[in-house]
Formats: sequence, C-alpha cells, structure tokens
Amino acid sequence: MLEKIIQKNTEKSEISEQLKGLREQLTLLENKIKTAGVPVIITFDGWSAAGKGSMIAKLIRSLDPRFYKVVSFRAPNEQEKRMPWLWRYWQSLPKKGEFLILDRSWYRDTVNAFMYGEIDKETRDTRLEDICTFERQLTDDGYVIVKIFLHITEDEQKKRIEKLENSSVTSWRVESHDIKNMEKYDKFFRRYDKMLESTNTAFAPWTCVGANERASAELEVLTAVTKAVSTAVSAKEKGEHYIPEPQFDTCGYNYPEYKTIEMPALAEVDMNKSLDEAEYEKKLKKYQDKLFKLQNLCYQKKIPVIICYEGWDAAGKGGNIKRIAAALDPRGYEVHPIAAPEPSELARHYLWRFWTRLEKNGHFTIFDRTWYGRVMVEPIEKLTPEERVNMAYREINEFESQLHAWGAEIIKFWVNVDKDEQLRRFNERENTPEKRWKITDEDWRNREKWDTYEKYVDRMITLTSTDIAPWTILEGNDKKYARIKALKTIVKRLEKRLEKEDK
Amino acid sequence: MLEKIIQKNTEKSEISEQLKGLREQLTLLENKIKTAGVPVIITFDGWSAAGKGSMIAKLIRSLDPRFYKVVSFRAPNEQEKRMPWLWRYWQSLPKKGEFLILDRSWYRDTVNAFMYGEIDKETRDTRLEDICTFERQLTDDGYVIVKIFLHITEDEQKKRIEKLENSSVTSWRVESHDIKNMEKYDKFFRRYDKMLESTNTAFAPWTCVGANERASAELEVLTAVTKAVSTAVSAKEKGEHYIPEPQFDTCGYNYPEYKTIEMPALAEVDMNKSLDEAEYEKKLKKYQDKLFKLQNLCYQKKIPVIICYEGWDAAGKGGNIKRIAAALDPRGYEVHPIAAPEPSELARHYLWRFWTRLEKNGHFTIFDRTWYGRVMVEPIEKLTPEERVNMAYREINEFESQLHAWGAEIIKFWVNVDKDEQLRRFNERENTPEKRWKITDEDWRNREKWDTYEKYVDRMITLTSTDIAPWTILEGNDKKYARIKALKTIVKRLEKRLEKEDK
Repeated sequence: MLEKIIQKNTEKSEISEQLKGLREQLTLLENKIKTAGVPVIITFDGWSAAGKGSMIAKLIRSLDPRFYKVVSFRAPNEQEKRMPWLWRYWQSLPKKGEFLILDRSWYRDTVNAFMYGEIDKETRDTRLEDICTFERQLTDDGYVIVKIFLHITEDEQKKRIEKLENSSVTSWRVESHDIKNMEKYDKFFRRYDKMLESTNTAFAPWTCVGANERASAELEVLTAVTKAVSTAVSAKEKGEHYIPEPQFDTCGYNYPEYKTIEMPALAEVDMNKSLDEAEYEKKLKKYQDKLFKLQNLCYQKKIPVIICYEGWDAAGKGGNIKRIAAALDPRGYEVHPIAAPEPSELARHYLWRFWTRLEKNGHFTIFDRTWYGRVMVEPIEKLTPEERVNMAYREINEFESQLHAWGAEIIKFWVNVDKDEQLRRFNERENTPEKRWKITDEDWRNREKWDTYEKYVDRMITLTSTDIAPWTILEGNDKKYARIKALKTIVKRLEKRLEKEDK
Repeated sequence: MLEKIIQKNTEKSEISEQLKGLREQLTLLENKIKTAGVPVIITFDGWSAAGKGSMIAKLIRSLDPRFYKVVSFRAPNEQEKRMPWLWRYWQSLPKKGEFLILDRSWYRDTVNAFMYGEIDKETRDTRLEDICTFERQLTDDGYVIVKIFLHITEDEQKKRIEKLENSSVTSWRVESHDIKNMEKYDKFFRRYDKMLESTNTAFAPWTCVGANERASAELEVLTAVTKAVSTAVSAKEKGEHYIPEPQFDTCGYNYPEYKTIEMPALAEVDMNKSLDEAEYEKKLKKYQDKLFKLQNLCYQKKIPVIICYEGWDAAGKGGNIKRIAAALDPRGYEVHPIAAPEPSELARHYLWRFWTRLEKNGHFTIFDRTWYGRVMVEPIEKLTPEERVNMAYREINEFESQLHAWGAEIIKFWVNVDKDEQLRRFNERENTPEKRWKITDEDWRNREKWDTYEKYVDRMITLTSTDIAPWTILEGNDKKYARIKALKTIVKRLEKRLEKEDK
C-alpha cells in the first residue's frame, strides 16, 4: 500500500482555510459523539520522526480535554510482559462518548517489536491476526477505529532525525532505535507494507498519509477523522451499524472455527452422584495437598490459571470456591465475584471488565460468575439484543483462545442442581437467619424462568466447550461430590499441563 | 511494648477446642460484616520468619474467599516509587463488607525500609505520623483496622531461618535481608518497639502476639480479630461509632493545625474584571508558551502538578481547562471529570477515588470538580451527615499536605460568576442546540440553592486555603479574563517552584 501514497504539496493558503472548517466541524461532532454515546479510537503509527506527536497535538486542539485521553505506547513494562499482549490496550479502552488517541498502538507490537528483537516472526504473524479479531470485536460493539499511518520518504526521515539530533532541546527524543532504523528503511518499508495490507479491513481500514509536508498531512488526518466520526454518528442516530467508507479489505484473514467437544444436555446429567463424609474428607485432603504443590509449580513456570464458575442459584458455587481457595497460597490467587456491571463498565465493551480483572501469569484468577452472563442473563432479561448475543459465542471463544495463547489454563465449571434441590435450598436459606442474605427476590424470579435458562445453558455449553477451554459439569445435588470433582478436575488439568511443559 | 510480650505455651488440647469455637464465630461474623457494610483491614507485621504467611493462611480458612483479599507488600516497584508513599495502600482499600488482609503493611515502609537503606531517618519519622493520620481517616470513616505484630525471640528467629535455609523447598524464601537482620536483632528490637509505641492509638491499637509457639499465637490472633469485628458489628447495628477495646494510646501525635491565608468572601469579589480580545490573544499565547516549557522542566525534575477546578455551574470550567490543556504535551497530563460516585466508589472512603486518579510525578493531574464535593454538594444534598462533613476540612488539608510532602504543586481554582451571568448562560445553553447537553434540570435545582451554596463555598475557601494549597478565585463573568488569570497563576507558581528547586 505504501508505494501508492502521494506526498502532496497543496497550496498553504488553501489548506489553512480547509483546516479551519474541519476543526469547527470536529468541535461540533464531539458533542454529538457524547450525546450518541459513540466511543472513538484514533491510532497513530508510522515511521520514526514522521510527526506523530505533533499531529496528535494538532488534532486535540479541537477537542475538549475532559473527553479524550492520549496514551503513548512504547515497549511493554515488566507488569505488561506478564499479561496477554493485548491486555494493555484493553485496559485503555475509552468509554462511550469519549476519544482515545494513541501515540503508537498495538501495531507497535508487531513490526517494530519484531525489528527490535522483542518477538519472533511467528509471534508477529499471530499478532496481526489477533489485531483483526480485536478490532472486529470493538467495531462490532460500536467502537469507531480510525487508524492513521504517517508515511515519510527515506530522505525526509534522514533529514528529520539529523535535525532532531543536532538540537539540544530535542536530541533526547532520538533513540538509538531511530538511528539504526534509518539504515534499514527498505526492510521496514516492506514489513510495514505487509502489516498494512494484512490489517486493512472493511471495519477498520487504514488511512495512510504522506507526511513529508506537514500541513497537507494534517489536512488528510483531520479529513479522515471528521469523515469517520460523522458517518458513525449519523449511523448511530439512525440506529444503524456504522460501516466505514470507502470499503477496503486487503486483509483476507479467515476467522477460525473453534473445535468443540461433545457435551451432554443438562437434562441428561446423572444427578444422583454423591460421596460419603469419610470418603469426602480423605479426598479433600488428598486433592488440596496436590493443588497446593501444583500452584507452586505453576508459579515457578509462570502459568496463568483461570477458573470460571457458573451455575444455578444456590448450586453451591461459593462453598466450592472456598475449597479451592483453601488449598492455595493466598498471595497467589484472586477471587472475583461478578455482579451487575457498574456505569463505567456498561460504558465499555462487555469483555473489558474481565480483561481488566486478570491476574498476572503464575497466578490463579477465579471468577464467581463470568463473561458467560452475556449469553444467559443478558438475552433472557433482554439487556442485550439477540443479534449481539449471537456474536458473543465467537467473541468468547476468541477471548479464551487469546488467553490460551498467552499460556493460560482455562477451567470452566457449570455447577448443576436439579429443580427440586434448588427449591429445598431456597427454603432453607429463607428459614435460616444467617443464610438469609444469600437469597433475594431475584433468585425466585430467575427460578420461574428455569426452562428458558436451561435452553440457553445447553446452547452455551454446546457452543463454547472448545478443546482448549472445555466445560466441566459438576453434579451438585451433593455438594461434597461437586467439590471433589472440581478439585480433581483442576489437579488433573494442571498435572497434564506441567507434564507437557517438562517435555 | 515488646518486652511485655509473653511467649505463651498453652496446652494444645485446650487451644484446639477454643480455636474451633473462634472459627465458627468468625464465619458467622463474616455474614454480619457483609450485611452491616463494615470494611475490615487486618495487617500482619513482625519479625522475619515470625510466621506471617502461615498465620494468614490459618485466618482465612474461616472466611469466604469472595469477600477477602490478601495482598503482600514488599519494596515498592518503579511505578509505586513515583507516587505518594501511601498511594499503594489507598489503592488496595477494601469495600464495605469486605476484608483486606495484608502480609506486611505500611509499617514495612517505616522501620524495615529504614534498615534496608530505602529511606532516611527523617522520612521514617514523618511516615509514622502519616500512618496515624491515615489510620484515623479510615477508622473515622467506619473502617476497622486490626494490627497484628508477630513477635519471636532472637533464638527462635535464628532457628527458623536456619531451618528454612536448609530445606530445598523453602530456601528461596530466605532473602539476604533476613540473614543480615538476624545479626541486628537488638537494633531491630529497639526500632520496632518505638514504631509500635508511636502508632498505638485508641482507634487502631496494636495486638502484639508472642509467636514462638504457633498454636497459642493463632489463638491470640483469632481472638483479637473476632473481638474487634464483633464489637464493630454491634456498634454499627446500634448506629454507634466503633471504638476498639481496651483503650490504649501511647502515640501522642499532635495533629497539626494548618496555616490558612486570608481570603475574601465571594460577595466581596470584584466581578467586573475583563480583557479585550487583542489583549487576550496576546497573553494567551505568551502564557501558553511559558506553560509548555514549564511542563518540560517539571517532567525532568519529576514534579507532580495537581490542578483543581471548582466553581458555579456554567462558570466556564470546561473552556478554562481547555486553554490549560492546549498548552501541554498530551502525553504528560490527564483531565479527570468527576461525576457522582459509582457503587464501587461509594463503598470505600470518599478520598479513594481521588487517590487512585493521581498521575505519577512529573505529570499534571487536572480535576474538573474534586474532593471538595464532600463539603459542598454532600452536606447540601444531605448525602453525608454534618458530623462527617465537619471532619472533612481537616481530612482534606491532611490529604493535600501529604501530596505536598510527595512534592506536588497543588493549584486550586474557584471559577466564580455572579447570579445574573449564570442565568444568562443557562438561557443561552437552553437556546443553542449544540450546547443543550450541557444544561440539566439539576443545574436549575442547584441554582435555587445559590445562597446555601455560597455559604458553604465561603466556608470551604476559608478553612482550606492553606499556604501549601491556597485557593485562587477566578473572576469568571468574563471568560477571557478568567482563562488568562488561571494560566498566569499556574505559570507563576511553577516558576517559583522551579527557582526553589534550582537553589
């Protein structure tokens, strides 16, 4: 794509008139963005010394600083290195009605990271695919992504870096990277070009700007931003999904089909399994001891472990989690109870609150209820339109697949009880003063929708039991049985994983 | 205090019976904590190898892992070093109804940090005072703080560290610190003792536990925790403030009176000041250029700059902030608009959401509305009882004083308009489609309470215009005048500060 970029040299007076109009338009659009609740992400990538920083400074002049945030991304720090690579970008997601402007973005972590020796070629290629997934998930959720690549020619870059170096005010901005890269212009050119081609999608196309001449570059940037934002706002106002224009798609990435394993429907599960007290105590000790040792090994090998609990109300999730936690060193895990989202969570992509709750590698993250709320309570309570819910099965498989690629073991439990047992437990809770806080009117209302829930749960288990993150159904009419099965499942999975690591 | 600690050696069978009872009690109390909405912090400090980790493991056995969090504090990391020293503890504050359990706490950053050469003696002494302030602020807000110091004798410590070192499983846990410290037992003893004495307050007393014998130590810990929590729950249920028993206070710290500077009442402010367009444009450019350069110097010298905006609705805060932001490198500041608190914010100390929004040193943090809501909207709208509001003046002065001690320049603006000018602007907003989002029914309701607000604002300005963080009133009937005055105030303050730095 790069060879097609024209270094424009428009008449200055003409540019300044047009710029003025665009800036005014942008200020008006900003209010509409806020009212319509559209989140906008603008990324700036490109050659060293292409003028990303000063272009951002020009862009934000038209914006209200309370509603945008500028974030600068360089090499990941120690904490970021222990998280999935996209984690730091998820962290920064803007709220609806806000702008996020990135001085280098996730694209920095592909070609640049590869050229700086931070990652290998295979990782770079996977990351390019991850980016397509990431951007598609965001735009499907209503995010507008404007991607700017600032292009300068080899001569121009040389001139600029020399100038920066020779000034005492700016010489600190020239990194040793920059010097070395100048010598590799051709190599970078080919690699940037490939990067641009393979991430130029219909939903998040590139705007490549010839930036030798700063004023005309500014004009192109402002035009692209204004156009994208105004199209998005009109679409939102009409209740339509925003599609950028013109339509490019040189990406051609085929989103994978996730291999699922066969699972029984809930109605087929044998709910008569149980354990007697003596057997329970013996096995509890046995598996807790094992788990404690395994945690230590996972810590040493920096394996992230993610344990998810879903299940009927009163199925015994809390008590089950307690038996897992009791086996673990408390400095190495975190339990996250997931309740209804707060305003700041509702204002972002629904996966945001899960991405931001992940513990670093070597640690356990235990979720008491999870992102699967998206495909159960949200459609049933009509909190989310069916159209978005249907997209969630893929989104969730993608999310878990990215966690897996990070190195995580993902263990998902559906804690099952039958309808009679639930009723018995509800009544017991009502009648026991110290348990009464556990039962609410909502629990009774949910119970009335048992059949609908069952349908959605069956569908969820069928569509998201992938080979890398399968569901395990815990027969929970007998709590002891369910606890031992959970412990055993985790132990077996980690043993298997560690065996593989040792090979 | 340490010499009075008795290393108990109670009969094992007797202990185990008592422990069982305490554990059951604790499980019941946990539900009450949740229902009553009491946040509990339990800190574990003490000698190396005193058994903090295993004591925590025992304690949490009785607790539901969804409602506690264990955090381990060691030397601050790079990010933490660029923040006020208490920042990382504020970050971790539990919600109402939850437990936070600390494996080493803010006490680690006093004696230990001093002995490890991380801080000097004077800093240690200031930190001990900061701790009294911190703990008082939390307990005044309803937090229960249980502070455990695990004491072992010199012989016992030596024995334990040798044992740890000689086992292949545990040798990694012995840090070089530990070895060196063994040789300094006497020195540590005296310093720990002084630390305990000077932070043993009526609201957060120490529980010093002889830990040579593990079982009796556990008994003492569980007894202390159970007692504190049950007293707190009963107090809360009766609507009373929790006071720990028995009453110790060996601290004797005198909370300082903050020196305030004289300020005019709003009614006395001359609202006729203005600037013509030409003058405005000239000065705007002049001060923005200066500010840009000053930001660079503050960045280099790692000075944190905190700018606070309060003012009447429609006083022009947004436009004013925009002119400040326009002068700054966007990678070096953050603007935080402060709206009504979210559930997770309401569930914590009211200063939490401000502590957690601070940018690292060298950066600007700009607040559009601030912690001063506590002494304006909260009493007027009866969101907070007068009793707590009255405590806030001191709390806020303390907060700003801690920011000052961190190195921050704190610049606070009250953007003033008179009642007629506000009405004019409200009407203009109503009548201009693209400004209509800025005006709400709440604005009109607030306007009806103008006189009450004015009284509270006058009081706020009088009580919190300290010499380290004075208020500046911006005469805002003319927006241009107010913008230039804000810019000039910031520029002058930073110039003065940098002059001082250079001396």
